[in-house]
Amino acid sequence: MAAAAAAHEPEVIRDKAAMRAWSRRRRAEGKAVAFVPTMGFLHDGHLSLVSAAVAAAAGPVSVVVSIYVNPSQFAPTEDFATYPSDFAGDLRKLAATGAVAAVFCPPDLYVRGSAGHPTASASGGAASCLEEAGGHAHETWIRVEQLEKGLCGSSRPVFFRGVATVVAKLFNIVEPGIAVFGKKDYQQWRVICRMVRDLDFAIEIIGSEIVREADGLAMSSRNVHLSCEEREKALSISRSLVNARTSVLNGNNHGQQIKDQIVQTLTEAGGQVDYVEIVEQESLTPVERIDRPAVICVAAWFGKVRLICWNFWVIKRSK
Amino acid sequence: MAAAAAAHEPEVIRDKAAMRAWSRRRRAEGKAVAFVPTMGFLHDGHLSLVSAAVAAAAGPVSVVVSIYVNPSQFAPTEDFATYPSDFAGDLRKLAATGAVAAVFCPPDLYVRGSAGHPTASASGGAASCLEEAGGHAHETWIRVEQLEKGLCGSSRPVFFRGVATVVAKLFNIVEPGIAVFGKKDYQQWRVICRMVRDLDFAIEIIGSEIVREADGLAMSSRNVHLSCEEREKALSISRSLVNARTSVLNGNNHGQQIKDQIVQTLTEAGGQVDYVEIVEQESLTPVERIDRPAVICVAAWFGKVRLICWNFWVIKRSK
Repeated sequence: MAAAAAAHEPEVIRDKAAMRAWSRRRRAEGKAVAFVPTMGFLHDGHLSLVSAAVAAAAGPVSVVVSIYVNPSQFAPTEDFATYPSDFAGDLRKLAATGAVAAVFCPPDLYVRGSAGHPTASASGGAASCLEEAGGHAHETWIRVEQLEKGLCGSSRPVFFRGVATVVAKLFNIVEPGIAVFGKKDYQQWRVICRMVRDLDFAIEIIGSEIVREADGLAMSSRNVHLSCEEREKALSISRSLVNARTSVLNGNNHGQQIKDQIVQTLTEAGGQVDYVEIVEQESLTPVERIDRPAVICVAAWFGKVRLICWNFWVIKRSK
Repeated sequence: MAAAAAAHEPEVIRDKAAMRAWSRRRRAEGKAVAFVPTMGFLHDGHLSLVSAAVAAAAGPVSVVVSIYVNPSQFAPTEDFATYPSDFAGDLRKLAATGAVAAVFCPPDLYVRGSAGHPTASASGGAASCLEEAGGHAHETWIRVEQLEKGLCGSSRPVFFRGVATVVAKLFNIVEPGIAVFGKKDYQQWRVICRMVRDLDFAIEIIGSEIVREADGLAMSSRNVHLSCEEREKALSISRSLVNARTSVLNGNNHGQQIKDQIVQTLTEAGGQVDYVEIVEQESLTPVERIDRPAVICVAAWFGKVRLICWNFWVIKRSK
């Protein structure tokens, strides 16, 4: 029995070169490498990405999950320092899936410079927790200049720059043929798809649907910071989105009216709205009249927790 | 004899997917893939990059040369439209080396958008010939934010953004283990090295030394645009750099004095100086006192031709 359990235990890899060599060995054996990047503190949403990775491969597949809290996607004012972690728990959960071959958990992914020699960013003066850490030598940034604007990009100016850059680094280290991202972070998923297309990464990107708790709350590592009361209030997000969808399906195509209703629901529940937007699914440009495939994106604060980019599909209204 | 000649004829590949598949087949056969990106109109400087590619490989190697004039590294005011080309001649020269296995010459590398829907760049408002072409869908840009500043970056605001981005695309298509760049374009070489380090590309970058004509003029595709008289005047660049080097080796470590001498020589020859800088070899930060490994970088106009980034090593003065 012990041997059977050990067979499912993922290999833990901390070194970039070792990770790349591992991946190349798998490919040489004829296996696809499917990659699930995470920041850890895993929940069933993450585990559904692992299932999606297995399902996406046409033949034998080795699934790699990375766990790395990326400093460059957090502004100094954000929650990098308090981002939750539980490495032992994460490993247990991944082992229990029986589907994860390796866990990549590098101590750091960036070349750091000498302290006291901070490097200002040329990207409109935006700086992340990487830059704030006392100067660094990393200076290459990838920006997806249209899709990074608006929605989460407005209130989190370094976020998508940091995400695109670290994902490109991870792609170059893990060298997967498939990578899976959750659609809960809808804008992030679109940014990654665009980057892969524009930079010709030979990687198939899979977008995986939102996984919700029984009560409707979308799963997120940040939910752990919600008090019972805040959590109850946060259910107003899914509730308002369900109502909005019903409204659209019933023939209401007035974007502003639908957004106003969501804002009202969230505000009445005690949430502080960052944004409520209805946008085209591919371009993320605002839609005023809902007459094409669109998505509603919501970000709101409940207590000290910003529940980002919770979204819900609005399908094209049938005529 | 015809068969022997045919054996040296490089395979011409125009399609991205075909190029990647070709490269993967070579690697599966146990060959290293060494890559020489060019914009065509090849001269002996380019051919020396091919030799460097062969020399850099420890074992069997397949050399790929790309020929692609990249619109995104030219500003609309620059010479994209008049950049010289001679595809048939290039192929002949590459075949004659007997060392090139494939030539990658894609018709275009970017996803274009609909005309009349121009996309403004978020990179400080800089726009290239790609953006000017009437709107496009490509929107992902790589910037090496410190090294792209100064020197050629000052007068060519989109240049290094375009170079870094197209090189990353080519790397993802050709998937080489080795890539060779000429040190004539010194800042470009440093930008690429930094990008490769920061984004974890698994590629060894080789810097290849400048190749000069018998009279001292560094080889460049743009030399073809020089009149006889301008060419004669342009020799002032190599002459002034040789003198500067001699001066340093003889004990002069006053950066400003050496730069002044070069500017004077170039101006007296009828050149219009863009910049003359003495910088640290790795960081490209200006050096006032030449007491460490440094490089002199010069860009100047002779007639309508900007001879960029011509440089010459200044070694650390022996004591």
